[in-house]
Amino acid sequence: MPRKLRHHLFNNKLLFMVKIAMLGSGFIGRFYADSIQGYRSQDKIVSIYSRREESAKKFAEDYKVAHWTVNMEEAIANKEVDIVCISLPNNLHEAAVMLCCKYKKAVMSTKPLGRNAAEARRMLKAVEAASIFNGYLEDLVYTPKFLKAHQSVKSGALGRILWAKSREAHPGPHSEWFWDLEQAGGGCILDLGCHCVEIGRSYIGKNIKPIEVMCWADTQVKPIEAEDHAIGLVKYENGAIGQFEVSWTFRGGLDLRDEVMGSEGTIWINNFLRTGFDLFTTGKGADYVAEKAETNTGWQFPVGDELNELGYNHMFMDMFDALEAGRQPKETFYDGYVVNSVLDAAYRSAKSKIWEPVRLDIWRGEEGLKKDSNFTEYDDEHYFVKEETTHYGTKKLILKNKASGKIIEKLIEDAG
Amino acid sequence: MPRKLRHHLFNNKLLFMVKIAMLGSGFIGRFYADSIQGYRSQDKIVSIYSRREESAKKFAEDYKVAHWTVNMEEAIANKEVDIVCISLPNNLHEAAVMLCCKYKKAVMSTKPLGRNAAEARRMLKAVEAASIFNGYLEDLVYTPKFLKAHQSVKSGALGRILWAKSREAHPGPHSEWFWDLEQAGGGCILDLGCHCVEIGRSYIGKNIKPIEVMCWADTQVKPIEAEDHAIGLVKYENGAIGQFEVSWTFRGGLDLRDEVMGSEGTIWINNFLRTGFDLFTTGKGADYVAEKAETNTGWQFPVGDELNELGYNHMFMDMFDALEAGRQPKETFYDGYVVNSVLDAAYRSAKSKIWEPVRLDIWRGEEGLKKDSNFTEYDDEHYFVKEETTHYGTKKLILKNKASGKIIEKLIEDAG
Amino acid sequence: MPRKLRHHLFNNKLLFMVKIAMLGSGFIGRFYADSIQGYRSQDKIVSIYSRREESAKKFAEDYKVAHWTVNMEEAIANKEVDIVCISLPNNLHEAAVMLCCKYKKAVMSTKPLGRNAAEARRMLKAVEAASIFNGYLEDLVYTPKFLKAHQSVKSGALGRILWAKSREAHPGPHSEWFWDLEQAGGGCILDLGCHCVEIGRSYIGKNIKPIEVMCWADTQVKPIEAEDHAIGLVKYENGAIGQFEVSWTFRGGLDLRDEVMGSEGTIWINNFLRTGFDLFTTGKGADYVAEKAETNTGWQFPVGDELNELGYNHMFMDMFDALEAGRQPKETFYDGYVVNSVLDAAYRSAKSKIWEPVRLDIWRGEEGLKKDSNFTEYDDEHYFVKEETTHYGTKKLILKNKASGKIIEKLIEDAG
Amino acid sequence: MPRKLRHHLFNNKLLFMVKIAMLGSGFIGRFYADSIQGYRSQDKIVSIYSRREESAKKFAEDYKVAHWTVNMEEAIANKEVDIVCISLPNNLHEAAVMLCCKYKKAVMSTKPLGRNAAEARRMLKAVEAASIFNGYLEDLVYTPKFLKAHQSVKSGALGRILWAKSREAHPGPHSEWFWDLEQAGGGCILDLGCHCVEIGRSYIGKNIKPIEVMCWADTQVKPIEAEDHAIGLVKYENGAIGQFEVSWTFRGGLDLRDEVMGSEGTIWINNFLRTGFDLFTTGKGADYVAEKAETNTGWQFPVGDELNELGYNHMFMDMFDALEAGRQPKETFYDGYVVNSVLDAAYRSAKSKIWEPVRLDIWRGEEGLKKDSNFTEYDDEHYFVKEETTHYGTKKLILKNKASGKIIEKLIEDAG
Repeated sequence: MPRKLRHHLFNNKLLFMVKIAMLGSGFIGRFYADSIQGYRSQDKIVSIYSRREESAKKFAEDYKVAHWTVNMEEAIANKEVDIVCISLPNNLHEAAVMLCCKYKKAVMSTKPLGRNAAEARRMLKAVEAASIFNGYLEDLVYTPKFLKAHQSVKSGALGRILWAKSREAHPGPHSEWFWDLEQAGGGCILDLGCHCVEIGRSYIGKNIKPIEVMCWADTQVKPIEAEDHAIGLVKYENGAIGQFEVSWTFRGGLDLRDEVMGSEGTIWINNFLRTGFDLFTTGKGADYVAEKAETNTGWQFPVGDELNELGYNHMFMDMFDALEAGRQPKETFYDGYVVNSVLDAAYRSAKSKIWEPVRLDIWRGEEGLKKDSNFTEYDDEHYFVKEETTHYGTKKLILKNKASGKIIEKLIEDAG
Repeated sequence: MPRKLRHHLFNNKLLFMVKIAMLGSGFIGRFYADSIQGYRSQDKIVSIYSRREESAKKFAEDYKVAHWTVNMEEAIANKEVDIVCISLPNNLHEAAVMLCCKYKKAVMSTKPLGRNAAEARRMLKAVEAASIFNGYLEDLVYTPKFLKAHQSVKSGALGRILWAKSREAHPGPHSEWFWDLEQAGGGCILDLGCHCVEIGRSYIGKNIKPIEVMCWADTQVKPIEAEDHAIGLVKYENGAIGQFEVSWTFRGGLDLRDEVMGSEGTIWINNFLRTGFDLFTTGKGADYVAEKAETNTGWQFPVGDELNELGYNHMFMDMFDALEAGRQPKETFYDGYVVNSVLDAAYRSAKSKIWEPVRLDIWRGEEGLKKDSNFTEYDDEHYFVKEETTHYGTKKLILKNKASGKIIEKLIEDAG
Repeated sequence: MPRKLRHHLFNNKLLFMVKIAMLGSGFIGRFYADSIQGYRSQDKIVSIYSRREESAKKFAEDYKVAHWTVNMEEAIANKEVDIVCISLPNNLHEAAVMLCCKYKKAVMSTKPLGRNAAEARRMLKAVEAASIFNGYLEDLVYTPKFLKAHQSVKSGALGRILWAKSREAHPGPHSEWFWDLEQAGGGCILDLGCHCVEIGRSYIGKNIKPIEVMCWADTQVKPIEAEDHAIGLVKYENGAIGQFEVSWTFRGGLDLRDEVMGSEGTIWINNFLRTGFDLFTTGKGADYVAEKAETNTGWQFPVGDELNELGYNHMFMDMFDALEAGRQPKETFYDGYVVNSVLDAAYRSAKSKIWEPVRLDIWRGEEGLKKDSNFTEYDDEHYFVKEETTHYGTKKLILKNKASGKIIEKLIEDAG
Repeated sequence: MPRKLRHHLFNNKLLFMVKIAMLGSGFIGRFYADSIQGYRSQDKIVSIYSRREESAKKFAEDYKVAHWTVNMEEAIANKEVDIVCISLPNNLHEAAVMLCCKYKKAVMSTKPLGRNAAEARRMLKAVEAASIFNGYLEDLVYTPKFLKAHQSVKSGALGRILWAKSREAHPGPHSEWFWDLEQAGGGCILDLGCHCVEIGRSYIGKNIKPIEVMCWADTQVKPIEAEDHAIGLVKYENGAIGQFEVSWTFRGGLDLRDEVMGSEGTIWINNFLRTGFDLFTTGKGADYVAEKAETNTGWQFPVGDELNELGYNHMFMDMFDALEAGRQPKETFYDGYVVNSVLDAAYRSAKSKIWEPVRLDIWRGEEGLKKDSNFTEYDDEHYFVKEETTHYGTKKLILKNKASGKIIEKLIEDAG
């Protein structure tokens, strides 16, 4: 973090305003802008780059941005700019990052970081060589529900984490470039799986090494080259399992659910389609309901505050607070690189039909972990298997004799 | 809005920072402070008043507040202060408001505005006479779910609103003054009903006059003088019905639900206990889960971001944006006064056991509305009653003959 | 129970087959028949009476009934018949019951028993004078969820019952006679409120006397004389409150929910619209989904086994087991009479706008109960108000001094 | 179906009573007996075999069974017996089936049919050689929710089925033999996966051939040889994917959920832990709540009628109706054999870490199916990719040019 950031004493308060260059004025760029300039934010987008002039102008007008351009380098080089926010199609991330390195500008990039691990590694090496702040905009590990759930997991409420599943499925993305393999670099594995992998990895522990991946993928419905449906398993060094379920063929809206199993507990999170808000309408007043809703009559399930529920607010808060404090944000290009490496293994596995190793040239977590023991001592002679309450209200223990290996049942007093 | 508020050109951005004096350092004052200074807020609490020195100091330390005091007037008079935020027990609101009038300071007050309509009316008259900005901190009409639901209602998605129910129930408040009738001014009707009445009124239309109230109230469980459980109906001039269900005897957490019925649709909102976040734990890691949760083992239902889900963020955003723009906020002392008037009628009804009129000396909405017709024309001879799909897949109409009043059935072709 | 019922040793099993005369071949008659002859039932409808010949014939064919008739007395008098099942419009119940008395036939009647308490009382007196088995077909206190919840309540899991709410709302009934005040005797209060009152009464205790009723009712949407929306409160002698919410104007399907609050617990039951079965369809395969579903595209919420979920199976099991055992069923004409008496008070209250007493000439439960105390002792000097866990993880007690009445807070050790 | 079953004209009704010999008096045998003799059933258990005399006697007493024995052959040979119901540990199924063949008795067996496909195939061949009625007691394709969902799937409401996931997870079985690899033949894959595989297969189509299986399995928590957690994918010849998630390490109760994705719709079923019944209790009245519930304080989620919700009632209805009608039940030993074959492949895959082929010597469904096309024509020049409603309320189409393969966007008029 070599560059000193601007602090000001304003109105007797020490204030740190972040000034952003936004690259890309599409769907995601606008979501980001709504969040960055939302609430009572002190931060400001000061330059907007778009490939199309009319889009750049429109964005500048809508978000009161002083400077617009169709020249990416100009936006990045702008003296006003503290940090560059990349909201471009996947195939343009690397070039944008290299320009940020050239101008020593802090940078944060939308997900996935690269179209593959090779791209991501080059970006990671470049930003570290240039010693610039780098943030990876993985919003779904910043949702309010995730943050609180993750805190519970870290506090031990679930015991040892055994399995973390993340599912993202919807009827397909809204911009044409997603459907083009060259620009996007992949289908729903890359587009949605990147979220799921980082969610699973976060619950299991970001310092636990992902070892190998098994993945099924197919193009079941859409007339495209890339996969529109995939399921994958990610094995970690400590024996925990991550799971992702991703699809562009789901009908009914945006299905965004996570589940975690631990030896002492369970978490179920529904981020979007069932959040305690049900609305039925016979059809009058057919307005925009929510991202990827499929109907506007009958039962609807809107989300109160999409920007907050999808994690954008807490994500940018972490990014800018980190920039202010001169620390790293929770998610960096390194995380983006790890995610790309896991997804690369998933793509290889979908073709080879075997478990494929995760190739991590750069790994900064723990090494050499072993699976935790599955033997819990009950007494000198037995291991504990299970406690059971019967229909009759009495309790019994199921135990395993250490020497003989034999399973026995033992009645215990009614605790009722 | 006589007083010009301070705008500054900061770092090339026109910035408006709001500086707040917080009165009260208890549970609600801290919630407010977390919200006001949360996210990337440009706003700042600059003075804290508490009745107890140690509380004032602790608050000042926790929230980095420059000035603390045990003298309320000192906090209000402080030159730095743009707006005063009242987070005091109910019996102290009026005195605080009068001091704000004296110093011509913008003021916003927690709910309920007064312990009764007389207090509320005096406060309303005072702030209007003093021409100061006044905001009523009714957070539950600022929850993200409410805001979106309300927008749907206004867009006509539910047709004509027939009924709006709001329920708030929990095992009782956390500070001792709530349980003392003199300080609180009432029990759960005043503490919780104020939320419910304003929610119902907002769905039905804030310009529709509440006419009369029927209320049952009792002290069923707690050893107190005030009521710990109540149910009320509020009749509006256009025939719509508001309903509140409030209790300090509910077991299981904080039950916060709203329901709306319209002629064309339905809304169900669960704000707290079922929001798509389920957590089971055998008991390790017993941390604080959520406001008013009763257990920390077994199934838990945490809320991701309480400040946002409870409406605090959007409420203060409206308050400060309004202050900045020189407009009124959505909720003003006038609304607080209307709510107190409805609750007064509820208290009278609980004693008299009849429908009690709502006495509104000050009314700024519509007058003389009548109930909407319940006759929908089907054809020249019939009114429409209902369309029905039978087991067999055919459809039939139920109609009423205009002349004879006779109900008939008419089979129509299968639309299947 | 004077008449000896037929038992037979069949295939070495002592078998008791019930033979039923069904009066009425409409919507409810068919539901009943599906249940009575469902699963591996040993029971059989042996005669069907309908006012229209074609309906009687069709029913006889569909359910393989040996005898059909358009003469009610003929069906009842039929020698084969053990019990008569009344599934007729409300205005025909009394005449049917009188015929059963004449022929000393066991009888069970659909709900409500009468159009008012006077009719119900005459029926009750007649069946008791004739000493015939009489069952009241209130299916919603036989739903599997109710049965299990009721068992929990009786076992003390909820402590003292404070409030029991039952809600039934849908877009209106499917047969024309419901909409005709003369035949039906009332609107949604009578049609739906009869369920709600008996549900509330069952949770609170069928031996606890309902004392008075407050009710709001209106005709908000439908072009009818009877009410299409009503809300009522039923006060019981021990201070518990029953609540009913009924409507024929609800949009979205069949809303059937119950809630119970006790001093130690809470019950929430959703019987129909949210039972763990969600289906989304873009619209192909537009079949019959569920009773009173409004749409067949978008999100649907079917019920797995309507007959079972609505209580029909367990209701007829109780009726026939009782008949076999020579005991009374759980619900008798006496219960139907009590319900009608409560509803009569509701109708009076809706007009008089005051709490109306429940007039019960016949009352077989407890008398002279008082409200339970709301004082729980903490120690010699204090009553217990509440235990609270703070943000900081410590616990505090809120207590009331017996002598001074003052509320105090007392910190207790962290149980964490 | 060679043996003529006994029909009788009883009380003028043609009655068919089924007389059952129950083998096994444990947890599942009692569940079965509760169902078989439940409601107003005409059927009867006439003989009970248990390995332990006291268990046999107790069962005979509880269920009023005329004959008990500790000699399995005696129960089967009993002249009264129409059909034998096998509720024994997995390692005893085959011997019991062979005795049924010897005595030409109709037989139905609990799940899984065999410990592996070889056992299952021998049983299948034996019952077919003996020409005896054979039923496979896979209750979870008989749950009311499954039956209705399956009907929707068959009617086309979901379009082409793409994926069917079934999840069964709980804290581990209640009898000691499950934990012993020799008796059980496997861990949670065999115990729970057998349900999931048949559920998935039923949604996808029982005539569609399962081709290969990928499975991860591990022993993460329990001190046993068998797996306590597994996830598997089953690929079908038409490209559809079945998925099973099974565990004996789940905390929080019995998690029993199914999900189906089709090209036109979605199904989500929760069979147990969230069915519209929530109960909170502070802990008084600590009774038995539900199968595999872990706590009896705090929030509970009971199931109304476990026998019905778990499919037992509809399963035995199908079995006995089939026996009566001389037809096959929906589930036969053939289905049990197919399931065992899929599970064998899962076990092989968990070891080999590759997709393992399903070896089906006996296959009676379709052969040679191909994956459906993923190209939907939009017009002569384009394939349809997606229709999208933007924030602004306008609609756009995403299309693919047939010749160039290029993805384009096309605005269409607002349908609002």
